[in-house]
Amino acid sequence: MYVTKADGRLEKFDFYKIVRTCKRSGVPQNEAERIAGEIERQAYDGIPTRDLLNIILTHLEKRNAGYASRYDLKGAIMRLGPSGFAFEKFIAELFRIMGYSTQTNVIVQGRCVPHEVDVVAEKDCKRYMIECKYRNLPGVYIGIQKALYVWARFEDIRDGSDAGKCIKFDVPYLVCNTKFSDDVIQYASCRGLKVMGWSYPEGASISDILNEKKIYPVTVLRSIDTRMIGLLADANMMFCSDLSEEKLAGLGISKKRVQDIMDEVRGVLKDMV
Amino acid sequence: MYVTKADGRLEKFDFYKIVRTCKRSGVPQNEAERIAGEIERQAYDGIPTRDLLNIILTHLEKRNAGYASRYDLKGAIMRLGPSGFAFEKFIAELFRIMGYSTQTNVIVQGRCVPHEVDVVAEKDCKRYMIECKYRNLPGVYIGIQKALYVWARFEDIRDGSDAGKCIKFDVPYLVCNTKFSDDVIQYASCRGLKVMGWSYPEGASISDILNEKKIYPVTVLRSIDTRMIGLLADANMMFCSDLSEEKLAGLGISKKRVQDIMDEVRGVLKDMV
Repeated sequence: MYVTKADGRLEKFDFYKIVRTCKRSGVPQNEAERIAGEIERQAYDGIPTRDLLNIILTHLEKRNAGYASRYDLKGAIMRLGPSGFAFEKFIAELFRIMGYSTQTNVIVQGRCVPHEVDVVAEKDCKRYMIECKYRNLPGVYIGIQKALYVWARFEDIRDGSDAGKCIKFDVPYLVCNTKFSDDVIQYASCRGLKVMGWSYPEGASISDILNEKKIYPVTVLRSIDTRMIGLLADANMMFCSDLSEEKLAGLGISKKRVQDIMDEVRGVLKDMV
Repeated sequence: MYVTKADGRLEKFDFYKIVRTCKRSGVPQNEAERIAGEIERQAYDGIPTRDLLNIILTHLEKRNAGYASRYDLKGAIMRLGPSGFAFEKFIAELFRIMGYSTQTNVIVQGRCVPHEVDVVAEKDCKRYMIECKYRNLPGVYIGIQKALYVWARFEDIRDGSDAGKCIKFDVPYLVCNTKFSDDVIQYASCRGLKVMGWSYPEGASISDILNEKKIYPVTVLRSIDTRMIGLLADANMMFCSDLSEEKLAGLGISKKRVQDIMDEVRGVLKDMV
């Protein structure tokens, strides 16, 4: 059986890919296998990926609203930008949760020109210059020009520090919410530029950290609409863990709506197996 | 008397600016002053720049079709891209006319990754790595990220050459058809990156060279339409000097149209004073 991808190419139906997708949403292994089996029976040859994903989502929803909310974590990150949450604040928070101290949008004087550093992060006596690239379409690659310019920016700041114009930075870092082209990865490893994308590097990618640390942006919530997300953005509540009955009520949201939202939040934050 | 600019700001009517505009189109000094005087009488307080430019154009047309064709050289460069002429080929030709030997779209192995160099130019035993940036809107600035990445690309190629992976390049060069932001100019002069824009640096800008060497892209011609420009692009005829009765007839263009086009070409190429 084949699945039709978004670009029209065919791909073999992969039972274990569906198991992995379910597990990433917090479903235990045996239940994930059961769902994958049901989906295998429901799917048909040539089914578009999107339809397949919708079937998976229906199954997750039937079992637990929390599974379904967590299911589209990648889309939730994509929705942060247009909702008014700055991507660099999100990344700063991600690093803070990993034990770094962070600052956003810091002006640093390089040797030749001043630079705005998206996130300055520090840990274990090392200072990181983090450049954040946000793309609002999945599948869009970050190309070599971005990696080159981050490296040149780091060099100008390093030379500025050598000349006593600014503090010292030890490591340049390029973070994006999608993918890197192959030559970015090659260039980065050759130059000592760190990179982090949605699922790169394996085990230390954005999705790995979000799942491991159970960090869920409010944009995963299915019970809130764009207007409500705007309210939360204005109030600087970016993560599900930032929400509480009191805080939501403080935004003038009705008691009934607050209950619905907090029910979903509890489902999302429930321990994953 | 004031002129209303495209962004709504007011600017004092400048007699000598109009004289300079006319002279750039090839009008002799005394005639240019006469035209500027007529325009000063025709204009009114608060006239939009665009209307003022149209009046100038009408005056130039009345005197000589060649003046009028040359008048909008900047717009002609803008129209090259959408017409199917690659900007890097245009720049390569510009450098060739300045006495450089040139090649376009050359793959060069850097220390870390391979790079595609838009134009490789050589003169006096120096080899230039030229990166071309084309913008199809006037007033759009090339920002610091572009300058930084051109520098990092140059460094990777320089290191690749040191490691014996590629030929040696001496000078990085960033060329664009619009403007550079101030920090690009500052960074470039600090690092030794050469830059050339539509009117920068003074005396050696794209417009200076075009006017000095009397190079006019076919997109200055007012007697040809988009379809005809497409024909010329396919036949690799980028400049007015590339056109002749024989070549145009060879493209299957009618005798009458060929005559009209060549009349305008002769007007454009007529010696400027």
